[in-house]
Amino acid sequence: MNFEAAVLELLDRREIADLIHSYCFHFDRSEPEKVAGLFTQDATLDYGPESATIVGAEAIASTIAVGLEHTFAATSHHVSNIQLEFEGPDAARAVTSLYAWHRYADGSPDGELWGCYRHRFERTDAGSWRIAALVLEAAGTSNFHRQTMHPIGRR
Amino acid sequence: MNFEAAVLELLDRREIADLIHSYCFHFDRSEPEKVAGLFTQDATLDYGPESATIVGAEAIASTIAVGLEHTFAATSHHVSNIQLEFEGPDAARAVTSLYAWHRYADGSPDGELWGCYRHRFERTDAGSWRIAALVLEAAGTSNFHRQTMHPIGRR
Amino acid sequence: MNFEAAVLELLDRREIADLIHSYCFHFDRSEPEKVAGLFTQDATLDYGPESATIVGAEAIASTIAVGLEHTFAATSHHVSNIQLEFEGPDAARAVTSLYAWHRYADGSPDGELWGCYRHRFERTDAGSWRIAALVLEAAGTSNFHRQTMHPIGRR
Repeated sequence: MNFEAAVLELLDRREIADLIHSYCFHFDRSEPEKVAGLFTQDATLDYGPESATIVGAEAIASTIAVGLEHTFAATSHHVSNIQLEFEGPDAARAVTSLYAWHRYADGSPDGELWGCYRHRFERTDAGSWRIAALVLEAAGTSNFHRQTMHPIGRR
Repeated sequence: MNFEAAVLELLDRREIADLIHSYCFHFDRSEPEKVAGLFTQDATLDYGPESATIVGAEAIASTIAVGLEHTFAATSHHVSNIQLEFEGPDAARAVTSLYAWHRYADGSPDGELWGCYRHRFERTDAGSWRIAALVLEAAGTSNFHRQTMHPIGRR
Repeated sequence: MNFEAAVLELLDRREIADLIHSYCFHFDRSEPEKVAGLFTQDATLDYGPESATIVGAEAIASTIAVGLEHTFAATSHHVSNIQLEFEGPDAARAVTSLYAWHRYADGSPDGELWGCYRHRFERTDAGSWRIAALVLEAAGTSNFHRQTMHPIGRR
């Protein structure tokens, strides 16, 4: 067994988990530029079939900013169950459970979403990991502001 | 300090966490055979005093399949707070927090459960970890399809 | 790269995560003495502006005991998204997401809190980590027994 390779992989796993957590942290604090900074320059972000896939870190920042300012009064994104697989030394995929709570700016009842994020990650030339793709899938919602979501793939 | 032993334990912890996550993943996607494949051949699964303890991977698959087909329209199992202790090189126990959301096939209000899983894990002869025992305990429920649950042991 | 230092840090991270999980575990099982045992002797615990900051492990035990006996019939604390930074070999800070469910002794509707814990940790002379400071911040609440909370810092 190669212990040094095992330690490096554990460190990569920790860094990637921090990336997922940072997304939630900055989203809930309404910091769209910091959310966007976690993505690669050509990343794709797909929140569901009701809105076009967002492409590129700049578009991610400006698109998220609208929702953070006008749709939500508060949000709380709780992720867990991270299942991460490496596809090479500089690429990985994960499925992560998400329980997200939303308070709306217009006073609508709080919205909840139970589902998961499907992430693709890439190690940049500078050495740090970034989100290259993110797709949101829902097992179900309650009072949510979107009616149709990508499904989690229940049989 | 034995660094190689420490790394091996960290890898075991990661593999066991993946096992807990895979249970949730396959349950929520209604894949009873894949859920059962995470258990040892003689594993026990105790969902509470209202139903008999299920014994053996085959019985787990067939019993879970009934609930997944007839009781639930959707579920989402969010685990966290994994507290794992090794009882030897090939055995471990854990308490893991569970927040589970359930949408019912008959249109009943969504059921929620806040509680924990008590797991026992064994390393198989082939080297990989499996769930040897699972007991579900509830701190509380709301609109849940079971009335009586094993308690978490609040004083 | 110093692999031994990397492994030691991973072990510290695991021990500190266990500390956060133990807090939840013992709180939900109404074990105030065991909760207090996770804190340093001069630790501070700030649940929000409606109550004075609790100082010292003994005061933590006695103060928590009152709420556990009189306010709550059951609780379930689900933590995730642990973002931990070391501030030296024996000190660390973390932000950790919290979803907490509360059933009240007086029969009031279940209270929910979505937010985070801000922890400071110290390694004691005996070598083990303890909580030196804990501040609770809320993104939002529903039917909660406190009206005013420290905010998470949404812009």
